[in-house]
Amino acid sequence: MENIRVDLGARAYPIHIGRDILDDKSLYAPHVGGGSAAIVTNTIVAPLYLERVRGALAALGARTLNIVVDDGERAKEWHTLDSVFDALLQARCDRQTLIVALGGGVIGDLAGFAAAVYQRGVSFIQVPTTLLAQVDSSVGGKTAINHPRGKNMIGAFHQPRAVITDVATLDTLPERELRAGLAEVIKHGLALDAAFTQWLEGNVERLLARDPAALAYAIRRSCELKAQIVAADERESGRRALLNFGHTFGHAIETGLGYGTWLHGEAVAAGMVMAAELSSRCGLIGTEVTHRVRALIGRAGLPVEGPAMSPDRYLELMSIDKKAAQGKTRFVLLEAVGRSTLRAESDERKVRDAISACTRSAPATQ
Amino acid sequence: MENIRVDLGARAYPIHIGRDILDDKSLYAPHVGGGSAAIVTNTIVAPLYLERVRGALAALGARTLNIVVDDGERAKEWHTLDSVFDALLQARCDRQTLIVALGGGVIGDLAGFAAAVYQRGVSFIQVPTTLLAQVDSSVGGKTAINHPRGKNMIGAFHQPRAVITDVATLDTLPERELRAGLAEVIKHGLALDAAFTQWLEGNVERLLARDPAALAYAIRRSCELKAQIVAADERESGRRALLNFGHTFGHAIETGLGYGTWLHGEAVAAGMVMAAELSSRCGLIGTEVTHRVRALIGRAGLPVEGPAMSPDRYLELMSIDKKAAQGKTRFVLLEAVGRSTLRAESDERKVRDAISACTRSAPATQ
Repeated sequence: MENIRVDLGARAYPIHIGRDILDDKSLYAPHVGGGSAAIVTNTIVAPLYLERVRGALAALGARTLNIVVDDGERAKEWHTLDSVFDALLQARCDRQTLIVALGGGVIGDLAGFAAAVYQRGVSFIQVPTTLLAQVDSSVGGKTAINHPRGKNMIGAFHQPRAVITDVATLDTLPERELRAGLAEVIKHGLALDAAFTQWLEGNVERLLARDPAALAYAIRRSCELKAQIVAADERESGRRALLNFGHTFGHAIETGLGYGTWLHGEAVAAGMVMAAELSSRCGLIGTEVTHRVRALIGRAGLPVEGPAMSPDRYLELMSIDKKAAQGKTRFVLLEAVGRSTLRAESDERKVRDAISACTRSAPATQ
Repeated sequence: MENIRVDLGARAYPIHIGRDILDDKSLYAPHVGGGSAAIVTNTIVAPLYLERVRGALAALGARTLNIVVDDGERAKEWHTLDSVFDALLQARCDRQTLIVALGGGVIGDLAGFAAAVYQRGVSFIQVPTTLLAQVDSSVGGKTAINHPRGKNMIGAFHQPRAVITDVATLDTLPERELRAGLAEVIKHGLALDAAFTQWLEGNVERLLARDPAALAYAIRRSCELKAQIVAADERESGRRALLNFGHTFGHAIETGLGYGTWLHGEAVAAGMVMAAELSSRCGLIGTEVTHRVRALIGRAGLPVEGPAMSPDRYLELMSIDKKAAQGKTRFVLLEAVGRSTLRAESDERKVRDAISACTRSAPATQ
């Protein structure tokens, strides 16, 4: 088992990465005070892993409560969240209750936000079971639900007490979700680490074939890169925004199509191609970099172009994105492979052209 | 104008107390970045003060947005909160938006919680317009909405950037609300400060007559006492719980009757009498103290007994109160006038007897 520390002072926490560790009592023990523990999971994950996690918590003397919600991005909304509150209140869970998020990014965001606001905040542990959650969403304390007008619009920064990443859970992960998770791994390389990008270019097929050693390395390196950024900028006032590479365009895709039509990682993949294209049109990188970006994302089996929406629609959807500062949409752009920067692009024409160049049967720009 | 500082390190903020200061531009200026400012208020307060606050913000260059919700405790729930999010999103308010809570405790809790979770947190300013909000709820960063299963069950600790307390707003406050606010003033005296309690015993009629100097002193002293406690224990892990004197019983009254039947301060008033009665039955204080508590609360025109619910019903309602630790209900008890302590009372019989002794036509205990 490997351990990475997210260095956040009083809110510091460990990420444990290993095989068959999701029912390792010793990892939960420091966080169970003999009170109650509520495991939030979904209908897909529950039959696979719920009983093992519940057993570990019960063995530590916790009164356990299972909260099983529907699968999919649609669960990340108010009514599902309210059903979690209802279950917690009905079971008389108090401020000492530990919430365990067992599942992918949706469960982590939903259960994490529930933990952030239930009785003004209780402790929680992330047990991510998808590659996307293991390399990205379980680390860093961002929690949220969606609003009909925008993704992740309602949320909180609420750090987990620990992240328990059991790589054996990837054995049961559907192929499409594995690829979607790779999008965030690739994001960490492209935005932050040239050497890791090179490693990915040499190992993407091993990752798709679920080579355990390759997956373990990709997860560890992603967590290290993310942990460094989060430690330096917990609340995304600066450098942390670089982790949103591909996400401004990606969120527009997800919102425009309706949540869940494309997986988050798929939208981010196409979003990264668009962001690279915009970087090139802003003169920051040459076309050889955009080709590398496109090639790596394509080899991972991910979309290299966005769905057919007009540039106007993209712009409209992006203008309510959280990263809009003073009404201006800001983009994470590449300065090189492994180096990125945040800037507000004032030349709307360049943004339109980048979108047009990267959308399926794109309508003509005006 | 007087200024009190709530000393919370990076989250420190001032409480400004004065007459006709709610449209003083200089108090808002440090917090308006030329972006947008959303004023959340209700249908009662809007015609009285909204335009003055809006004018001050607009004069600073802010794009202003008015969000007017229904009056009353019933507004402190999800659907109203969602209407606030909807208005913010529709107006494309971003992370730099300042939210101004203009109104009483309900507006402060609702708008404060909206600020805590809108796009994972934006800045907000409290402009309290009721005595209750001025002496209590606007200070300390507690925000929340209610859940059908319990009061303030969903919320966050989110400190305001400033509190602007305009005592002139009390001129328009209904008599019943003035008295309800006095309950929290009396709470600060009884739980924390014997000298202030004595002052209240000598001045309660002046306060009811809205003597400006007396009100200004009561507000300032309450804010000082609360600011000290909050600075020492922001997230209520210890001493801050003393501010809940009367609230465990009080919340049971509010929940049992349905929110809004009794005002919060009225429920807390009867709750303080019950808590004093329990303190006496636990041998912490003599009956002369319970008589002083009852007398002061009665002179303020506040209820000295709870509504006719059975002790069983009280106990049931209290067991899901947030202050329940490990399933045990904890009470703030008096050790003397001006000195209080938090303890889990294990002798349920004493709690039942205290309730019976302080409820209107109370059913017999079992």
